[in-house]
Amino acid sequence: MTVNASDQPTIGDIGEFGLIDRLTDHIGDNRHVLLGPGDDAAHVSTNDGSFVVSTDLLVEGRHFRRDWSTAHDVGRKAAASNLSDINAMGGVATALTVGFGAPADLPVAWALEMVQGFEAECALVGAHIVGGDVTASDSIVIAVTAMGDAPRPVRRSGALPGDVVAYAGDLGLAAAGFATLSRGFRSPKAAVEAHRVPHPPYAAGPQAARAGATSMTDVSDGLIADLAHIADASGVAIDLDSSAFAIPEAVSTVAEALGRQALDFVLNGGDSYALVATFSSETALPDGWSPIGTVADGTGVTVDGETYDGPAGHQHFR
Amino acid sequence: MTVNASDQPTIGDIGEFGLIDRLTDHIGDNRHVLLGPGDDAAHVSTNDGSFVVSTDLLVEGRHFRRDWSTAHDVGRKAAASNLSDINAMGGVATALTVGFGAPADLPVAWALEMVQGFEAECALVGAHIVGGDVTASDSIVIAVTAMGDAPRPVRRSGALPGDVVAYAGDLGLAAAGFATLSRGFRSPKAAVEAHRVPHPPYAAGPQAARAGATSMTDVSDGLIADLAHIADASGVAIDLDSSAFAIPEAVSTVAEALGRQALDFVLNGGDSYALVATFSSETALPDGWSPIGTVADGTGVTVDGETYDGPAGHQHFR
Repeated sequence: MTVNASDQPTIGDIGEFGLIDRLTDHIGDNRHVLLGPGDDAAHVSTNDGSFVVSTDLLVEGRHFRRDWSTAHDVGRKAAASNLSDINAMGGVATALTVGFGAPADLPVAWALEMVQGFEAECALVGAHIVGGDVTASDSIVIAVTAMGDAPRPVRRSGALPGDVVAYAGDLGLAAAGFATLSRGFRSPKAAVEAHRVPHPPYAAGPQAARAGATSMTDVSDGLIADLAHIADASGVAIDLDSSAFAIPEAVSTVAEALGRQALDFVLNGGDSYALVATFSSETALPDGWSPIGTVADGTGVTVDGETYDGPAGHQHFR
Repeated sequence: MTVNASDQPTIGDIGEFGLIDRLTDHIGDNRHVLLGPGDDAAHVSTNDGSFVVSTDLLVEGRHFRRDWSTAHDVGRKAAASNLSDINAMGGVATALTVGFGAPADLPVAWALEMVQGFEAECALVGAHIVGGDVTASDSIVIAVTAMGDAPRPVRRSGALPGDVVAYAGDLGLAAAGFATLSRGFRSPKAAVEAHRVPHPPYAAGPQAARAGATSMTDVSDGLIADLAHIADASGVAIDLDSSAFAIPEAVSTVAEALGRQALDFVLNGGDSYALVATFSSETALPDGWSPIGTVADGTGVTVDGETYDGPAGHQHFR
């Protein structure tokens, strides 16, 4: 047993199997879950005989900070970042696995709240945790894999010259919130909250797939950086119209306070989990999707016809 | 760019996207992989409309050491531990995702060799990496999720009084190898190699499922600890016959050198990835399976009718 100075039991106090029991207590299931946590593997059904799958690895201090976010928020964001990848394929997640590494002195309550936040976010699309692994590690690590159904997976490679570029969701808010917290401020609340808990437009991905979107991705590195992946994979050029964006008030407030361009947050801000897609110009855009640009022959992404040289998208290790 | 004193490029030198390009270069695919790495999610087909899935989180210093194992061996073992979980359901893995966290000063060559070892182990069952994530972290973290087909998933909960307990694979060798390395020795080679690269009996899981195994699991915490999961889940008692085990010569050698009982390594040694299962007494055991005990009414696991009190199985955080 770990010596525990405070009243709060730590995960070292209850051990690996105690922690697993407590964590799996709160986990629900759905009609896709034929066998949930507790065996060597889970068993999950699919709608059409195939599934889409995506994985993310979140590390404390790099993807989240315990002094900025509650455990519940960290869990919601960990789930959201992966659910967003399934959304970006036009799919709906059904089952997720979670690997959780943490130091032995972590309060049990933190782990439970994180998993409750995770399940709360999953509930927005009807998905559940079906398996996991817990282990000791020096800092908190959360490894998430999401699996789901996508009747017509929308890749990054299908954009065609003449297509319309459109987005759904929030752009710039999360990045403005990150900039706010980095300077030691706690408001505007709309921006700070968007950084703590993103709100991916979960209905918009399947809608775009049904409407015939030719390509789609989610905005995780920044709109221009992520559209560059579509332009590369599709072999096309993309031009954005800077006047087409609705800039959230909180983004303008943060930009003014920090002496930055509001458009920078919108075009280069990461972690928003908005969706961006291309559609044939003859397609009526689904509700919630707004046009922001066009696809042409060529390469690369431009804004108003020119290379946009704001701060670049985020890369790890650099 | 990270300053790089040696000739070896580090992952900090080539950055996140450079690393992803290098890592995904080596990845193959199979008929199940409808869409592999490089998009928001992969797309994988199933044989029967459902899939089994399991996840593991491996942390440097706890699950592997760079001074004990090559990068290739670490990759093989990371894959093996998850492929073994699918094997333990009677399934065959088809697709895996890998989350990789590492410090920026890690040589690119280490990451490439790890992934090559990972794919080499996956090739033993015909599976491939379909997606991943890389991020910076203080120590190396490898998060693996394996998905596959299991026509008749064998759970831990189906053992019945009167059933025969049997195992397939190696018991005790990996634990003897770990004990050897912990004392600073490098031989006997058979034990040390079994710790570095386990050899799960990949044919034995599907064979047992086809033969009608009533319950099955793999030996990761230790034979007694893992059989206790079967006894608990099935609501039965299990008694092992200590004279039934073929004790590998290298295990006897290590036990003698360290003044321990060879049977301890066999009954309590972890990470062997052998399989243990129960079969009706009327079932002819498949090739490679050896009887080691019986199932009865009651609870718990005994050896020769008595509680076995060797060193206990491994738990994290304790």
